[in-house]
Amino acid sequence: MDLTKISDPSFLKELGNGELEALASDIRSFLIRELSATGGHIGPNLGVVELTIALHRAFDSPRDKIIWDVGHQAYVHKILTGRACDFSTLRKYRGLCGFPKRIESEHDVWETGHSSTSLSAAMGMAAARDIKGADNHVIPVIGDGALTGGMALEALNHIGSERTNMTVILNDNEMSIAPNVGALHNVLGRLRTAGKYNKAKDELEYLLKKIPAVGGKLASTAERVKDSLKYLLVTGVFFEELGFTYLGPVDGHSFEDLEANLNYAKKMEGPVLIHVLTKKGKGFRPAEEDKIGTWHGTGPYKLETGDLIKSPAKAPGWSALIAETVRRIAREDKRVVAITPAMPVGSKLEGFASEFPDRMFDVGIAEQHATTMAAGLAVEEMKPFLAIYSTFLQRAYDQVLHDIARQNLNVFIGIDRSGLVGADGETHQGVFDIAFLRSMPNLTIMMPKDENEGQHMVRTAVSYEDGPIALRYPRGNGLGVPMDEELREIPIGSWEMLREGSDAAILTFGTTIPMAFSAADRLREKGIDAAVVNARFIKPFDEEMLKNLLEKKIPIVTVEEAVLAGGFGSGVMEFAHEHGFHGSIIDRMGIPDKFIEHGSVNELLEEIGVTDEALAEKVEELVGLSRQKGMHAL
Amino acid sequence: MDLTKISDPSFLKELGNGELEALASDIRSFLIRELSATGGHIGPNLGVVELTIALHRAFDSPRDKIIWDVGHQAYVHKILTGRACDFSTLRKYRGLCGFPKRIESEHDVWETGHSSTSLSAAMGMAAARDIKGADNHVIPVIGDGALTGGMALEALNHIGSERTNMTVILNDNEMSIAPNVGALHNVLGRLRTAGKYNKAKDELEYLLKKIPAVGGKLASTAERVKDSLKYLLVTGVFFEELGFTYLGPVDGHSFEDLEANLNYAKKMEGPVLIHVLTKKGKGFRPAEEDKIGTWHGTGPYKLETGDLIKSPAKAPGWSALIAETVRRIAREDKRVVAITPAMPVGSKLEGFASEFPDRMFDVGIAEQHATTMAAGLAVEEMKPFLAIYSTFLQRAYDQVLHDIARQNLNVFIGIDRSGLVGADGETHQGVFDIAFLRSMPNLTIMMPKDENEGQHMVRTAVSYEDGPIALRYPRGNGLGVPMDEELREIPIGSWEMLREGSDAAILTFGTTIPMAFSAADRLREKGIDAAVVNARFIKPFDEEMLKNLLEKKIPIVTVEEAVLAGGFGSGVMEFAHEHGFHGSIIDRMGIPDKFIEHGSVNELLEEIGVTDEALAEKVEELVGLSRQKGMHAL
Repeated sequence: MDLTKISDPSFLKELGNGELEALASDIRSFLIRELSATGGHIGPNLGVVELTIALHRAFDSPRDKIIWDVGHQAYVHKILTGRACDFSTLRKYRGLCGFPKRIESEHDVWETGHSSTSLSAAMGMAAARDIKGADNHVIPVIGDGALTGGMALEALNHIGSERTNMTVILNDNEMSIAPNVGALHNVLGRLRTAGKYNKAKDELEYLLKKIPAVGGKLASTAERVKDSLKYLLVTGVFFEELGFTYLGPVDGHSFEDLEANLNYAKKMEGPVLIHVLTKKGKGFRPAEEDKIGTWHGTGPYKLETGDLIKSPAKAPGWSALIAETVRRIAREDKRVVAITPAMPVGSKLEGFASEFPDRMFDVGIAEQHATTMAAGLAVEEMKPFLAIYSTFLQRAYDQVLHDIARQNLNVFIGIDRSGLVGADGETHQGVFDIAFLRSMPNLTIMMPKDENEGQHMVRTAVSYEDGPIALRYPRGNGLGVPMDEELREIPIGSWEMLREGSDAAILTFGTTIPMAFSAADRLREKGIDAAVVNARFIKPFDEEMLKNLLEKKIPIVTVEEAVLAGGFGSGVMEFAHEHGFHGSIIDRMGIPDKFIEHGSVNELLEEIGVTDEALAEKVEELVGLSRQKGMHAL
Repeated sequence: MDLTKISDPSFLKELGNGELEALASDIRSFLIRELSATGGHIGPNLGVVELTIALHRAFDSPRDKIIWDVGHQAYVHKILTGRACDFSTLRKYRGLCGFPKRIESEHDVWETGHSSTSLSAAMGMAAARDIKGADNHVIPVIGDGALTGGMALEALNHIGSERTNMTVILNDNEMSIAPNVGALHNVLGRLRTAGKYNKAKDELEYLLKKIPAVGGKLASTAERVKDSLKYLLVTGVFFEELGFTYLGPVDGHSFEDLEANLNYAKKMEGPVLIHVLTKKGKGFRPAEEDKIGTWHGTGPYKLETGDLIKSPAKAPGWSALIAETVRRIAREDKRVVAITPAMPVGSKLEGFASEFPDRMFDVGIAEQHATTMAAGLAVEEMKPFLAIYSTFLQRAYDQVLHDIARQNLNVFIGIDRSGLVGADGETHQGVFDIAFLRSMPNLTIMMPKDENEGQHMVRTAVSYEDGPIALRYPRGNGLGVPMDEELREIPIGSWEMLREGSDAAILTFGTTIPMAFSAADRLREKGIDAAVVNARFIKPFDEEMLKNLLEKKIPIVTVEEAVLAGGFGSGVMEFAHEHGFHGSIIDRMGIPDKFIEHGSVNELLEEIGVTDEALAEKVEELVGLSRQKGMHAL
């Protein structure tokens, strides 16, 4: 069918099984075709085609609340709620968002991006329903990975103890338990789906009675018994214990099974968890066969072959550069260990992991634990490299402050994807870290101007012994500069005068340095000589250089790809006034007080007015002001 | 024995059972006596006397790492490691810290204050040990309450999956499960303690075989069966499933039982969890009989009667004032619901809870879930009041940013204990919130000058419909001002000129307003006329008033009981420069870039130089500078 004709999901209720299958097939073809041009989260979405259709058949959205955890698997939901026609703009500037977005549709009742929030949101919505005396359903859909996030477990515990009515869909696309007990499992699943044991307590009694047989049959070795018990628990009794009724496992690609379980769950009292097994990438062979996550989210690809269309990189990627330099140093320095919260591929730690398997910890989606574990390693004189995306470091604010900074421990925090990240949009922009880290005592924060300085900063961070040190690096690739063979340490708190200038000074760091040069070039054409400073230490400052600049009484403009409130530029103002330079002309460029949506980084910078042109104009204006008014009486 | 003679815990190994009992009794008497004068966390410490002694006998601290979760239960540990003589200074300025402190003793291997960090720290320390090839033990001690915190669950999951050697002590002082299945439980406990089933796999096999009998015996009703299964799981199989060997439950006041289990655990491979049952307040009747947590942590009390020594309050306490005003409004406005992460007593929500049991949610130690649940309620048009201490809001940074502020939801965040908190010290100071909240788009932040303005701000917050709004209020009591009968709304972003002045302006809010008045009085004596502004909206500013002040070209001094970096004063600088007031003389007073330890709030303010005297001096100096140099050319 023509998916762009769909305006809302009500038509689904009328379809027969054959039509449903056809629709699923059409949606898959549509996704594979559309995403070949735009890129996007193809794997997760191909896995939930039937599940999404079944949810919209069984429930009445938006009256019933379907909540997508993380939200990158909501494409099918977007198609079924009237947005197929917008897919050519997916994740593009002012185009369809890659995550649920309330402004896009009344069916997007909750916005996500970060993991593990859906159960807490669902608890809030269900509590509101019960207080109001309404009777709508609340259906959070959460993946097995997101369930390891602490806040999801906090929510499960609370929902179970309150016995709140809701239907949790556990979208399990990773059979991490040994397959040898799968048979038993399927038996239980079938029994339940068939509705023979339609009361939670009966189910439990049944389980109790069955266990000896299970134990007897499988206990050829004690280990196997243990596994089987574990299997039972993980997949059902674990949730039962928390107060949920467990249904499943259900074949997530069978409309019949899904429908039976969803309709059954609707009638039950208290929280129900339906364990749905899905296959990521289903229906698209390259994605189905993916073992390492390449097809989780991709750029454009060739429809015929499934080959990814990649423009050849002109320079090393930042994540790889940093991770590989850590690995290089780890060969000499046995204190170095690496920690990632579920991002070994994104943070390019595969090489480190294969060379130092005992010194590598992938803790799953668990940023809080990752961060405090790093603190624990540092207490015992190890040198932990915590590789974490800027946006996910937000999840560990207190762990950085209370456990690392307060105890002044030597943790090396690699803040990956700092700054604007582009297509993932507002939930993922790495623009708050400076504002929230700068006020933490004991913490050093730096960002390199290019990948050569980046590798030296890795060296600096590992050698530093006076407390925690954070290295910010952006998404994407470096500049292609020549790389020094030998690593060296950069003096803590040292800035670099990249270009002298007597009329004004531009202070910036990281990705915006080329912009500063370009602005300085423009200014030179107008007879204005602007200095460009690589303010590579965001904390502490190069006090000597900054004082010198302030004493020159020239206008200072700071540029940062980060929020302005409390950011680097504010720090420059704080320093100026604190040191009595009250007459200084200081202005700032950066991210204003609003959330920045998706689009290419350049489009976004243009939108917020952070460009070389705007920078040159600002400097010119301030230089004019300074000359005109006879500034700097002090 | 004379506890002040103890220098380290090695003497414990030589003691017989009778001597141990005598020591425990001496420690209890000491604690009850000493804390009657200083106050402190008496209940938790009386509960762990035998456990702490047993830990220091069974293990070799500091080689073996004993990690106290939260840390308020480390007094006995402090006594046994040579600090009894310092107890008269407990929680006082420059005195003994109420929490573990690395600088105090080599036995304090990990500092705490916030909950649920011990398992992550232990995982870090154990991983370091294994990488180094050392063989020391790692022993985190965590309470049943702290275990509901998401990061503890993240850590349990990781430790179990890595099968890392450690002995987790679950200090369970709350038997939350129905007592009717206690008998079975004790049988299991005895069997295990006796060491008959000394392999994890054997234990599991045993469990499997026993379950049918259990099911048969207890299944008089299906509900009871369910409970019994639940009981089994909660107390053992839950941990087994996660990969731990479970031992217990153990009588936490029996040296024999503790010793047997600790020694047994030491020999085991992989992670072991010992479930220890203790009684809070043991040995001191008022604390033993405490049902509502009065004796968790107290001020001084009368030794003979156990009556708390309270100076009569001259004004309402802040927490009560805010909570009771919310309750008052909730009578009219059925949208109002309250959420607390385990602090119903501290946040004075008991009244609300008893009047509106269906609209009150105590979610346990789970700040992340509490915050996002509030967002879920707001999506469904409720008006959630999230009562949370400033220091614990740090745990929910991302939930405020990603879930509440980004979706611009009408959540009312009551930030209790904002500013310096005194005796709890550096882990609990509520001084970071302005710095980390000010950069969040959509968020309004306010703080009242007195309790009358406080009640109006509650009205304002509940009425506000344009996004999230945070109301900061301090620890302690109000000023005793007259209270208006009728509540009214305060215009968003409006400041208040409390005192006109033509020579300088002091901008401040909340607790530091009296200091500003007092400084202004001092200045008047010197012929300087300083305005005092109640900058009650920390965000957004009263732009008109601030512009007027800047146009007057008088020095501006900001005062805040919060960190300076990125704080309110920085916001004033940002505003001035952004609006072209580059010549402004602006200076700030507040918390410098270091962690502030324990002591009375006044002692701490004195230490960091935030006093009326210093403020007057600063203003005087700047007024002199302004006059001398002919400032404000612009």
